[in-house]
Amino acid sequence: MSQENSAGALGFVVPQRVRFDAPLTLKSGAALPGFELVYETYGTLNAARTNAVLVCHALSGSHHVAGAYAEDPNNVGWWDNLVGPGKPLDTNKFFVVGVNNLGGCYGSTGPLSLNPQTGKRYGADFPLVTVEDWVAAQARLADHLGVDVWAAVLGGSLGGMQALEWSLQFPERIRHAMVIASAPKLSAQNIAFNEVARQAILSDPDFHGGHYAERGVVPVRGLRLARMIGHITYLSDDQMGEKFGRQLRHGTHKFSYDVDFEVESYLRYQGDKFAGFFDANTYLMMTKALDYFDPAYDYDGKLAAALARAKAKFLVASFSTDWRFSPARSREIVFALLENRRHVAYAEIDCDAGHDSFLLDDAHYHAVMRAYLENIEV
Amino acid sequence: MSQENSAGALGFVVPQRVRFDAPLTLKSGAALPGFELVYETYGTLNAARTNAVLVCHALSGSHHVAGAYAEDPNNVGWWDNLVGPGKPLDTNKFFVVGVNNLGGCYGSTGPLSLNPQTGKRYGADFPLVTVEDWVAAQARLADHLGVDVWAAVLGGSLGGMQALEWSLQFPERIRHAMVIASAPKLSAQNIAFNEVARQAILSDPDFHGGHYAERGVVPVRGLRLARMIGHITYLSDDQMGEKFGRQLRHGTHKFSYDVDFEVESYLRYQGDKFAGFFDANTYLMMTKALDYFDPAYDYDGKLAAALARAKAKFLVASFSTDWRFSPARSREIVFALLENRRHVAYAEIDCDAGHDSFLLDDAHYHAVMRAYLENIEV
Repeated sequence: MSQENSAGALGFVVPQRVRFDAPLTLKSGAALPGFELVYETYGTLNAARTNAVLVCHALSGSHHVAGAYAEDPNNVGWWDNLVGPGKPLDTNKFFVVGVNNLGGCYGSTGPLSLNPQTGKRYGADFPLVTVEDWVAAQARLADHLGVDVWAAVLGGSLGGMQALEWSLQFPERIRHAMVIASAPKLSAQNIAFNEVARQAILSDPDFHGGHYAERGVVPVRGLRLARMIGHITYLSDDQMGEKFGRQLRHGTHKFSYDVDFEVESYLRYQGDKFAGFFDANTYLMMTKALDYFDPAYDYDGKLAAALARAKAKFLVASFSTDWRFSPARSREIVFALLENRRHVAYAEIDCDAGHDSFLLDDAHYHAVMRAYLENIEV
Repeated sequence: MSQENSAGALGFVVPQRVRFDAPLTLKSGAALPGFELVYETYGTLNAARTNAVLVCHALSGSHHVAGAYAEDPNNVGWWDNLVGPGKPLDTNKFFVVGVNNLGGCYGSTGPLSLNPQTGKRYGADFPLVTVEDWVAAQARLADHLGVDVWAAVLGGSLGGMQALEWSLQFPERIRHAMVIASAPKLSAQNIAFNEVARQAILSDPDFHGGHYAERGVVPVRGLRLARMIGHITYLSDDQMGEKFGRQLRHGTHKFSYDVDFEVESYLRYQGDKFAGFFDANTYLMMTKALDYFDPAYDYDGKLAAALARAKAKFLVASFSTDWRFSPARSREIVFALLENRRHVAYAEIDCDAGHDSFLLDDAHYHAVMRAYLENIEV
C-alpha cells in the first residue's frame, strides 16, 4: 500500500480538537478539572448515526489512524493499511474516529499540558489514567460527535483492551467489539517487562522525578532502553531470526561495544527514534494502564462473571507467533464470552510477525477483518 | 539440601590461586601479558589422573561451585546441590574443579585487576575474551593441576558452550562433554536482550566509558536494569505466573510508580542485589562472549562440519520451559553430533523453571545427571 495511494484515496486529513469543561473523576480517585482530546475522523456519519467506528490506539499510537497530512505527506496514519475507502474498515461505509487518549503526548491533555492550577506543565503531577478512564473520556467524545451507539469499537493490544472495556462500561453504546492481539489482563511476565522499562526511565538522572520538562531536558537514555525492550517483545523470535539472524553489520566481529550484529543496529535505531519524540511520563502511564487492566479483578478473578454485562458481539483475533499476548490469552476472552452465550467470532491467524502482526496487512488477517466488518449492518 | 548438610558433607572449601606468566593471545588478537585464575577443587585426583571434572560457570557464576567457606558458612557454592559426596557429581569418585573465568570479577584477572602497564585497574582496557579464550586459559589450569584429560567438562548455559568448545579445541583432552541448557549460538532475540542489557550499562552516566573504578563510582543503575532484564529471560512465563501471578504487594493498586505487584518487588530486589557486587565491565564482556560464540561460523554455518573434530561423548540436556535456550537449540547440537556418528545422550526434561532449571535439584534432571556420571569410568 503506497503512501501516495493512501493519502490519495482518503484525501489529506486534519486533526481536530475538543475541550470538555466538566471535571472527570478518574479510577484512582484523582480528578481532572477538564480536558482536551485530539481526534481525526474519516468518512461521513450517516443520518441515522449508525455507522460510527472508534479505533483505539495502543501504547505508542495516536489519533492519526489513517491518511496523511497536507503539510507532512509522509506522515501516514498507523493503521492506514486497514482504514480507508475500499479497505477492510471501509470509510465509504463507516464513519471512523481516531482519538489520542487522555494522558497521551500527541495533543490530548497529558503530562506535557499546562496544569491550570500552577501554570506549569503537569509532568509527574498528571494523574495516572486507566483503560476505564480512557473509555470514559472517549464516551464524551462520542457525545460530542453525536454518536449514541458505536457500530464497532476496535483496537490491537492495549487498544483491544479499550474495545473490551467499552463493552463493559457502556454495554448499550457498542454493537461490536473487535479485540485484536490483546489479553484480558497482563501476566507476571508482561508486567515484568513493563517494570524494567519503567525503571529504565525512572532511574535516568534526567528524569528528575518526572519534572524534566521544567528543566529543559528529556530522559532519552531511559526512553531509549524502554523502547528497545518493548521492541523485542513486539517481534517474534522466528521473525527476528529471519529478519536479522546473526548478520554482522561490518562483516566481522568488532571486539568492542560498537554494533556487531544487525539486530543491535535495529534496536538502537528504534530506541533513538522513539526517544526523540515520545514523552516519558506518558510512556510510564501507558504501561501502568496496561498493568492495571483486569476486568475480572472485582469478580474474584472470574472473567466470565466480569463479562456477563457485555451485550456487544465480538470478534477476537490473535496471532500464532505473538508471545507478548499469545493466542491462549485471547482464548480466555472467547471462553468467558461463550460462557455468557455471547456472539463471538474467533480467528487465530498464522503470521510470523509476533505481536506487531496486528499492524500489518497480512492477507488472512485482513480478510478476517474485512469479512467481519462487511457483515456489520449500518 | 540444607546448607549445613552441604558444608558438612563436603567440608569447608578454600579457593586457590595460580599465576600464568606466559602471554596469552586472545581471539580478538589482543594479548594478556600473563594472568591469574582463582579456582576450587573438591575430591581427590586419583593416581592415574583419570577422574578430573571441570565445571564451567555461566554469566554470573564463579569458581565457588560447591561447599561453603569457614569464614562465611552461608556462602554456599552455586551448584552445591549437584556436586559433593554422594551427589550426582560425586566427589567421592571425581576430582571436581571450579574456576573463575578470565575477565571475571571473583578474583581471576579481569577488568578490576591492576594493569601492569599502567599500575591502574584495567577497567574498559581489559580485552574482550571469548569462550575460546576461556577454554585456552582453563587448559593452562589443567596443565597446572596435572590433568591431561578431563573425565568430563560440564556446564549450563554459557558454561555448556565452554564444555562444547573444549570438545573442539582440545578433542584429545576431554572424554565427556555435558552441555546443559545451552545452544550452539545465540539467536537474534538472544543477542537483542544482551544488547539492551549492555546499553543500560553503557549509557549509565556513572559508567564513564568503563573507567568508573578510577572515579570511585559504579554504574549501579545500568547493572540493575541489565540484571532485571536477564531475570525475566531466566524464568519461564508459566513459573512467573505461578510464583507471582498478579499478586499485589500492598493489597491495592497504588496509582504511582511504587511497587504494585510482587513481581516488580522481586525484580527490583534481584537487580539491586546484583548491582551491589558484580562488575559492569565483566558483565558486558560476558554478554559479548555469549554473542560471539558460534563454532559453525568458520564452517559456512554448518554445525555438523564444525563438530566433526569432536571426539568426546556427549550428554546434552534441555528444559521444556526454557525459552532463552529452548530444547530446539539443544537438538541442533544433538543432530550435528549424530551426523558425525558421535556418542550422544539427550534428555529433554519437563521442568517449569525455565532457563534457571539447570541450577535446580529437579529429581528427573538430577537422575539423568547421576546416571550419566555414574557410567563414566575413572
